Amino acid sequence: MEKLGKQTIKLSTPVTILETASIVGPKEAGGPMAPYFDTCLQDEFWGEKTWEKAESKIIKETVNTVIAKSGIAANDIDYCFAGDLLNQCISSSFGLRELNIPFFGVFGACSTFAESMCLGSIFVSSGAAKNVLCATSSHFCSAEKQFRFPLELGNQRPPSSQWTVTGSGATILSNSGDGPYITHITPGKIIDLGITDANNMGAAMAPAFVDTLITHFKDTGRKPSYYDVIISGDLGHIGKDIAIDLAMSKGYNIKSNYNDCGVLMFDKDTQDTHSGGSGCACLGSIFSGYFFKQLKEKKIKRILVIATGALMNSTSVQQGESIPGIAHALSIEI
Amino acid sequence: MEKLGKQTIKLSTPVTILETASIVGPKEAGGPMAPYFDTCLQDEFWGEKTWEKAESKIIKETVNTVIAKSGIAANDIDYCFAGDLLNQCISSSFGLRELNIPFFGVFGACSTFAESMCLGSIFVSSGAAKNVLCATSSHFCSAEKQFRFPLELGNQRPPSSQWTVTGSGATILSNSGDGPYITHITPGKIIDLGITDANNMGAAMAPAFVDTLITHFKDTGRKPSYYDVIISGDLGHIGKDIAIDLAMSKGYNIKSNYNDCGVLMFDKDTQDTHSGGSGCACLGSIFSGYFFKQLKEKKIKRILVIATGALMNSTSVQQGESIPGIAHALSIEI
Repeated sequence: MEKLGKQTIKLSTPVTILETASIVGPKEAGGPMAPYFDTCLQDEFWGEKTWEKAESKIIKETVNTVIAKSGIAANDIDYCFAGDLLNQCISSSFGLRELNIPFFGVFGACSTFAESMCLGSIFVSSGAAKNVLCATSSHFCSAEKQFRFPLELGNQRPPSSQWTVTGSGATILSNSGDGPYITHITPGKIIDLGITDANNMGAAMAPAFVDTLITHFKDTGRKPSYYDVIISGDLGHIGKDIAIDLAMSKGYNIKSNYNDCGVLMFDKDTQDTHSGGSGCACLGSIFSGYFFKQLKEKKIKRILVIATGALMNSTSVQQGESIPGIAHALSIEI
Repeated sequence: MEKLGKQTIKLSTPVTILETASIVGPKEAGGPMAPYFDTCLQDEFWGEKTWEKAESKIIKETVNTVIAKSGIAANDIDYCFAGDLLNQCISSSFGLRELNIPFFGVFGACSTFAESMCLGSIFVSSGAAKNVLCATSSHFCSAEKQFRFPLELGNQRPPSSQWTVTGSGATILSNSGDGPYITHITPGKIIDLGITDANNMGAAMAPAFVDTLITHFKDTGRKPSYYDVIISGDLGHIGKDIAIDLAMSKGYNIKSNYNDCGVLMFDKDTQDTHSGGSGCACLGSIFSGYFFKQLKEKKIKRILVIATGALMNSTSVQQGESIPGIAHALSIEI
């Protein structure tokens, strides 16, 4: 491994993203990304009695899908890295408890997918593992219930709020295969600029995104134009605009090649999701469903993936705390 | 790195545990381990308005203490791995948000300290980092409030219940220094034998402990007698007895050199903690406070540390789910 600058690690051997899989819910099935997912569900319960059990089933089946698609036997996967938004990450632990693969629980809120891939890529690149599994999930109904209001209340959502994606993304990273390759990771610091509005996560997380973005450029000596695409997840419409302005104010113009998975997931005009999508599964499913295929088909050659997370809970909001953000970056090339 | 057997990694270069620190609450200050902690608090609030803020302060000050004791400048620490029991791991993210060190959030319930050290040791041994920080915390009052009943209710606790330790443990792992060395890690699988009693965590986690224990022995070819001490955290009195019996039934006699941090933390006769201590800080503070000093003073030369976690939340218990357990092992030698 080679440490570049303050935070970036250049992997000693690039790690192949062998395969990905994605399952999403009915709302996401009505959005512009629908054609790219492996499975679109018709209801939020998927035959289960509770939203929590449904979310566990979604991550479980997404993991089963990625293993089946990869052609790798489950017992050839050395370690699993997974986490989610539910208290104590129960959708991952319950969904993956029958997997029989050594398990590292990860919590990075909506940055979990990238955090898992950062950790997994160090394991693979260092020779500690040949194949690792990274997975995450989120669920609109279980997240609303836990973080905000019971859905039965029919509460009105403020315009700056985002819609938690129901779904899951999973990937297998490997020391063999012919790419796309993870070449660098830039794990992020906790950044808290004092935003206290739990209905404006985009504003809370945008500074963390920009901090990791600029750190990645400084550490690697690269410029925004090095990448065909830079994606964040999940700043939404409001957070995306803040991120572009904030990066510009620090001398980095990302207007032409940057987009946010929260913006991409839903149709702004017809789907009434206000500032866009959020949740671990937003970037998880869009990377797994859309961008991985773009890389495999060589439609894009270099992508910088920066997943963002808001590290708060409902108690901290009630206690008047501000919302710390974090963002982890992965540089991926074919 | 060398993969041994199914789950164990022999680190390519052993990783030094450079320094540790521990802070505990007033109940722990009355127990037999009190002389070994850096700081014993006189009340559960430590001048803060809420238990959650107190817990954040405890992990923050424990981290400040370990950095000060180590002599390493904070900006020479490459990455931080931390997590806790609170929903969305807020004591770690709030306590460490001013640290300015790239941050990996970890969730392994009471196995978090060992999980963090497993991840951190791979980063150091692989050359991805020179120094990493691992930290965890728990708090009796915030945990009771979140997982069980408001303390104000004065609820009676069943005899099989454990007492969540108020405190924090933190360590700095380094590629330089003269030990004690982490030489092997054995990350555990999720094991769920169907225990549904949330007041009997020891029973829920003991099978995961035994699974990781035996896997470690099979992977390394070692026997229980290889180690001066084997410690678990936190099975408590009931879980410890189950673990000894379960291991014996599979041909491994650990009676003479095994103990549990939940058993060690409190005086069974006078402190009224029923089955003993629990919480991320139980093993975290006892390893940091007691066993690290035993290693440094060469009173013990080889220790197998196996931290256990129960991967459930209060909703999963209400929904009748069983309790998945996990256990991560570290082999440490001088």
